[in-house]
Amino acid sequence: MAKKNAFYAQSGGVTSVINASACGVIETARKHKDKIGKVYAGRNGIIGALTEDLIDTSKDSAKSIAALRSTPAGGFGSCRFKLKSLEQNLREYERLIEVFKAHNIGYFFYNGGGDSADTCFKVSQISEKMGYPVQAIHVPKTVDNDLPITDCCPGFGSVAKYVAVSVREASFDVASMCKTSTKVFVVEVMGRHAGWIAAAGGLASDKGCELPIVILFPEIEFDQKKFIAKVDAMVKKHGYCSVVVSEGCHYPDGKFLAEQGTRDAFGHAQLGGAAPVVANMVKEALGYKFHWAVADYLQRSARHIASKTDVDQAYALGKAAVELALKGQNAVMPTVERLSDKPYRWKVGVAQLSKVANVEKFMPRNFITPDGFGITEKCRTYLSPLIKGEDYPIFKDGLPQYVQLKNVAVAKKLKEFKI
Amino acid sequence: MAKKNAFYAQSGGVTSVINASACGVIETARKHKDKIGKVYAGRNGIIGALTEDLIDTSKDSAKSIAALRSTPAGGFGSCRFKLKSLEQNLREYERLIEVFKAHNIGYFFYNGGGDSADTCFKVSQISEKMGYPVQAIHVPKTVDNDLPITDCCPGFGSVAKYVAVSVREASFDVASMCKTSTKVFVVEVMGRHAGWIAAAGGLASDKGCELPIVILFPEIEFDQKKFIAKVDAMVKKHGYCSVVVSEGCHYPDGKFLAEQGTRDAFGHAQLGGAAPVVANMVKEALGYKFHWAVADYLQRSARHIASKTDVDQAYALGKAAVELALKGQNAVMPTVERLSDKPYRWKVGVAQLSKVANVEKFMPRNFITPDGFGITEKCRTYLSPLIKGEDYPIFKDGLPQYVQLKNVAVAKKLKEFKI
Repeated sequence: MAKKNAFYAQSGGVTSVINASACGVIETARKHKDKIGKVYAGRNGIIGALTEDLIDTSKDSAKSIAALRSTPAGGFGSCRFKLKSLEQNLREYERLIEVFKAHNIGYFFYNGGGDSADTCFKVSQISEKMGYPVQAIHVPKTVDNDLPITDCCPGFGSVAKYVAVSVREASFDVASMCKTSTKVFVVEVMGRHAGWIAAAGGLASDKGCELPIVILFPEIEFDQKKFIAKVDAMVKKHGYCSVVVSEGCHYPDGKFLAEQGTRDAFGHAQLGGAAPVVANMVKEALGYKFHWAVADYLQRSARHIASKTDVDQAYALGKAAVELALKGQNAVMPTVERLSDKPYRWKVGVAQLSKVANVEKFMPRNFITPDGFGITEKCRTYLSPLIKGEDYPIFKDGLPQYVQLKNVAVAKKLKEFKI
Repeated sequence: MAKKNAFYAQSGGVTSVINASACGVIETARKHKDKIGKVYAGRNGIIGALTEDLIDTSKDSAKSIAALRSTPAGGFGSCRFKLKSLEQNLREYERLIEVFKAHNIGYFFYNGGGDSADTCFKVSQISEKMGYPVQAIHVPKTVDNDLPITDCCPGFGSVAKYVAVSVREASFDVASMCKTSTKVFVVEVMGRHAGWIAAAGGLASDKGCELPIVILFPEIEFDQKKFIAKVDAMVKKHGYCSVVVSEGCHYPDGKFLAEQGTRDAFGHAQLGGAAPVVANMVKEALGYKFHWAVADYLQRSARHIASKTDVDQAYALGKAAVELALKGQNAVMPTVERLSDKPYRWKVGVAQLSKVANVEKFMPRNFITPDGFGITEKCRTYLSPLIKGEDYPIFKDGLPQYVQLKNVAVAKKLKEFKI
C-alpha cells in the first residue's frame, strides 16, 4: 500500500480541549511516518476540505504542535456546516473525495459532535462507492456530552469543572453578602438539549462544603410556581441561594425561558438570556435582591481551569483515532470506557459510527432529584471523576501562553468549488 | 496600657482576596498576644458591631485561619451599610464605641473601599471625643481600584487577571469560529465609575499574542457611530473581534447603556446588561453574528485564577494594619507603594485616612488610546505586574478547597440596638 496523507478537521462549537485531540492526532501520525505522510488540516473545518483550503501541519514545529495540548479553541478553525444527506447533496461528498484524491489523502479524522459523526460515516460510505476508499475515523468532541456509547465526551469535563468551580466561588460571594444585599445569584450555562453542564453546577456543593444550589434542567419542564417555592425555601433556610439555569430550560410547551417575547423601546425583539429572565422572576415574586451572570463562551474556552481527566482523554482519543486507522479500521470512533468509579479507571474503546450518528444522549431521570432541582448521588458518582485533576497551561507575565499556529496553506490543485 | 482586643470587619462588595487580608490581620495579631487580646470579627461587617453580633475568631484553628488566604469572598460576612455623617447619625457612632468599650476593643480594623475608609476615619474621631480612644486602621479592598494614594487596591489585580485571561480565551474561541459563525463576542465587566477592570481586558492582547479587542470605558462617552465603525474595521481586518464593555459605559447624557428603557411583554422594565445591548447594536448595524457574556460575581470571586501579586499585597496590607496599630498609629491606611515597574517592586506605605476618605481615582486619560477604545503602553506598564503570578488554591476531587469558618458568636453584654 502506497503511503497516504491524512486529513484532520475540527467541527462545530470548539472546546478548551479539542486542540488536545488535534495534538494527539498529529503527534501520533508523526510517529508513523512510514505509514502516514503529511497531516493536512481543514482551514475552518470541513469547509477547508470542500474549498481545498488545506493547512500543511508539518510546517508547524513539534513545539507548536505540543503546545496545542494546552491551547483552547480550534487551532485550525472550525465551522458550523452540516453536509446534507447523500441524496440531497451528493456533489459535496464527491468534492470531498476529489480533494482527498488530489492530495493523496487516505485517512479522514473528523473531530466533532453528532453531526460530524454522521458526515464522517457518510464519507466512509461514499468513498468506497467512488472507488477511492478513505478510512474515516471520528474523534468525539462536545461540551454537551450528548454523544452515545462513549462514557463521556472530551470537552465536557472541562466545562463541567469550570461550572462547578464558578458556582462554588460565586456561592461563597453571595453567602457573604446576603445579610444586606444579594440573596439570589443566577448563572446561565450551555446545553440546549441536555442538562449535563447544568448538572455540573451541583458538584459545587458536596459533603465538605455544603451550598444551597437550585438547578434548572432542560430535561425538566419549567414550573414557575415550584421554582419560586424552592428558591424561597432555600433563602429562608440558608439566607441565600445560587441558581444554575441551562440555556435549554423551557416551558411545557417547548418555549425556552430565554424567549420571553420581550421588546425594546424600538419594538425590536429583546435578546435572550435565561438568567436575567429567571432573576427577574425571583425579584417579582419574592422581592429578593439578585445578581446574574451568563458564562457563554467563557465556560467552553476556559483552558486555565481545564480538567486533567478531560485533557488526558481528549489527547488519548486523538491518538487512538490514528492507531485505529493504522490497524485498518474504518467508520469508527474511539470512545471512553469507564472501568470503575472509585478509583476512577477508564480505557479507550471503539464504537461503530453507524451506531453513533444522530443519536443524542440525555441525562437519565435518576440523575436528577425527584423534585427536579438537584443531582442525585448516581449523577455525582458519574460526574465527579470527569472534573478531577488540574492541568494548568504555562503562564508568562500573568497570562496563559497559548499557541497561534502558522497554518501554512497547501498549494491548490483543483478548480474552485462554490459551497 | 492594659491589653485590648481588636475588632475586624469586611465591608461592601467582597473580592477573591479580602480574606487574605483577614488572614494577615488575624495571623499577625495572634503573634502579638502580649499586646492584642482576641480578634473579634463583625458578623456581616459593621452591622455585626452595631448589633453586637461579634465572632470570636480565636475559636477557629490556625489551619482554618491560614486557609482564609486562599478562600474567596468574606469569611465573616460583609454588608452594604454606610454610616451617615456624625451630625446625621451620632447615635450609630456612639453605639459602636459602646460595643467596643463593652468588649474591651482598642483596635478597629476596617477592610473596605472608599465609604469604609470614611467610616473608619469618623470612628477614630468620635472615639477620642467620647473619651474611649480606639485606633482605627483601614485595610484597602476594592475590585474597582478606585482608592487614592495607594498604587493599587487588593482585589483589583485578581479581577484584572480573570478578565485578561477570560478575554484571551474567548478571543481564541471566536477566532476559530468566525468563518461561518460568531464574529463579535461581547463581555461585560464590573466598574460603574472607573474603567480599571475593563482596561485589564486589553492585556489579553500583547506582543506575543495579538488579538483584536475593543474596550468601552466609563471614562469615555459612548459614541455609537464610532464604536460600530471600530468593530467593523476590526472584523474586516481580523475576521472577528472581542468587545469588553464596562457596566459603567454611558451616553454623553450620563444614561448607562444597560438602561435601555426596554420593557417586557408585561410592561416591566427589562433588566439591564450592557453586553446584550452592545451585541444587539452590532447585529443591527453590521449583521454580524454575536455572542455575549456577563461575568458579574464570577469575576470577583474567581479565587482559582487569583493574581499572586494581589494575594501577596492583600495579606501584606492586613499584616501591616496590625503592625501600624502596634506602633500606635491611628486614622491611617497601609498602602501599596510602587518602587519600580520592571522588575516590579513594591513596599508597604501609609496614608492618612483624612486624605483617602471619599476620593475616587479614575483612569488617567493617557492610559486610554486616543480613539478611546484601547489601552496605551503606559496603562499596560501599570497593569501588567498586578496580574503577575498564580496562586492556586488546593484542589480535591477537582474542586478548590475553601474554608467555611465556625464563626462562633461572642456572648452579648448590651441591650438590643435597632438599625
